[in-house]
Amino acid sequence: MWAAGARRPGLVLAALAALGLALEALVARRRRPVREVLFFPSRPSCTEALLAEAASPDDTPGPCPCPLPHGDCAFSRLLRHLLSARRSLELCLFAFSSPQLGRAVCLLHHRGVRVRVVTDAQYMALKGSQIGLLRHAGIQVRHDQESGFMHHKFAIVDRKMLITGSLNWTTEAIQNNRENILIMEDAEYVQPFLEEFERIWEIYDPLKYMFFSKENQ
Amino acid sequence: MWAAGARRPGLVLAALAALGLALEALVARRRRPVREVLFFPSRPSCTEALLAEAASPDDTPGPCPCPLPHGDCAFSRLLRHLLSARRSLELCLFAFSSPQLGRAVCLLHHRGVRVRVVTDAQYMALKGSQIGLLRHAGIQVRHDQESGFMHHKFAIVDRKMLITGSLNWTTEAIQNNRENILIMEDAEYVQPFLEEFERIWEIYDPLKYMFFSKENQ
Repeated sequence: MWAAGARRPGLVLAALAALGLALEALVARRRRPVREVLFFPSRPSCTEALLAEAASPDDTPGPCPCPLPHGDCAFSRLLRHLLSARRSLELCLFAFSSPQLGRAVCLLHHRGVRVRVVTDAQYMALKGSQIGLLRHAGIQVRHDQESGFMHHKFAIVDRKMLITGSLNWTTEAIQNNRENILIMEDAEYVQPFLEEFERIWEIYDPLKYMFFSKENQ
Repeated sequence: MWAAGARRPGLVLAALAALGLALEALVARRRRPVREVLFFPSRPSCTEALLAEAASPDDTPGPCPCPLPHGDCAFSRLLRHLLSARRSLELCLFAFSSPQLGRAVCLLHHRGVRVRVVTDAQYMALKGSQIGLLRHAGIQVRHDQESGFMHHKFAIVDRKMLITGSLNWTTEAIQNNRENILIMEDAEYVQPFLEEFERIWEIYDPLKYMFFSKENQ
């Protein structure tokens, strides 16, 4: 065996690489699911490095000269979990006006993550709303046309991580309100939210919008 | 053994009762923790029987003559979990104007459950707010005096069941909005919310209220 390996080093390396990948997949499947609770208001913290790293993973950003603290905080943890998306991101948000979270979602879209957004028709016109920017970037957005509010505030990362709570994605809520979010990978909680998203996504299909009465058509 | 048992039937019965109690305790400890996700708007449903039963557990209420459906729905499930409180109830609610939920909380208070409420100073004056009624019933209520909102919407039943989500406790939200709540007994999620409640409860101690400036005192 060893003699054959010595004669074919390429084969041995390929086998080792395959073994490494298999082990990595096993570890990933066996790792403890994320279970985190974050409370707000978040203390102010610079998130520039996190966003820069997500935009250019190969570049090491230099030290940030801004006067804000640069440590971990509730908001940076939220951002980090969001930026971990590799394949898909479902957002179901009553109000979305945080510029940093808007940038993060656009980054994910540009990175090839399939982003879908559901929001509230009245609150998407909120001052500083990120919805126009998301649409401009080419992200699919759908909204309600109901009298009640689309009041959910949840995100689903890669169909396996749920981020949900009282927090609207606004700077005001992040910096000034008492809020909570749960970040969880328990399938029992994630699955119903995924189904709720798909249900709402279909109900809010633009083909079903009724802004113009039949008489005007 | 049997002969001795036959001579002392009281002893055997007492032993059986003790065994039954021990088994019951074991089953209760071993029962699967509650893990439930509810979505709103809830379909309309009469909750009179639930509230009547909670008020007088020994009376069997007659059939309700009202025209509403009487089956299970998201709202009745929320109410049922709330009414399961035996020892304590912590409420941390941005807006609380649902009359049924107000009645349920007063019922629990009258049943001897230790109820504590934290709410938002601006929204406790909301039309139909239940906060005045709760205070009138003798329930302790504390509120913020901050510029941001006390925007949490969670309840903790008997220090072991967490009810949290996007739902404010208003009829509008229950009947018209798209909302979610999680009902969970996972200690990893319940414990941080308990600590958050205790932290806020202390911060909002009325002794620390600053409505009057030092100059006016």
